[in-house]
Amino acid sequence: MQTDTTPTDAAQSQSQIQSHTLIASDRVEGTPVRRSDGSKVGTIERLMIDKLSGNVAYAVLSFGGFLGMGQKHAPIPWTRLTYDRMLGAYHLDLTDAELQSAPSVAADQEFDWGDRSREVEIHNYYRVPPYWGAY
Amino acid sequence: MQTDTTPTDAAQSQSQIQSHTLIASDRVEGTPVRRSDGSKVGTIERLMIDKLSGNVAYAVLSFGGFLGMGQKHAPIPWTRLTYDRMLGAYHLDLTDAELQSAPSVAADQEFDWGDRSREVEIHNYYRVPPYWGAY
Repeated sequence: MQTDTTPTDAAQSQSQIQSHTLIASDRVEGTPVRRSDGSKVGTIERLMIDKLSGNVAYAVLSFGGFLGMGQKHAPIPWTRLTYDRMLGAYHLDLTDAELQSAPSVAADQEFDWGDRSREVEIHNYYRVPPYWGAY
Repeated sequence: MQTDTTPTDAAQSQSQIQSHTLIASDRVEGTPVRRSDGSKVGTIERLMIDKLSGNVAYAVLSFGGFLGMGQKHAPIPWTRLTYDRMLGAYHLDLTDAELQSAPSVAADQEFDWGDRSREVEIHNYYRVPPYWGAY
């Protein structure tokens, strides 16, 4: 069960909680991603970390793998995901059609992480600023 | 086998590689930490991510668990670790004695992540600036 706080957090002042709450990488891995209506978009497979800055760049979303389609991996900019306690999941309102047109690779292929132009495309798609600061 | 680059990286210019190389969270988990002489300090159990900034705050080092001692978890500031290809491990020159006096908890206990003064202690111990910007 994924929760956002620990009993220790709860005992502390709200400002303290907001200023430094930590989450474990292996708790994020495997967490579902859901739409506002509770329907499941997919599951977070792993996080991709920018070694230079130490920032989480992407959550790799695993989806598909049904009706004869292969499973796919879509890198979602980390800033685009918010954890929703009511949903018990990260929240992302993408329709199945939007998901199909989102930048993704087959689950058994490696994303071309060295390609900055591909990364620009991802950030444009999700309309968020890039993790490396500027285009 | 943990490597630091992919064939794709290698094909690119050095400046590009340095500006945006990514590493997967589940590849960091389980990676050994070694001293300059190659001896093993421990293994990275997981990463702790600051939800507010999206920065990796700590790598949780798992060590001990021999000669009747219980296994311990020590949070190491992420900025303190560098990956060493020759060692095939993250590099950290801590003696066993230093490790014993480093801030840590028993492996079955949760680190008190809500306690900023404890976090200051950790960063002082490793002599690195805190991930939240200032004391």
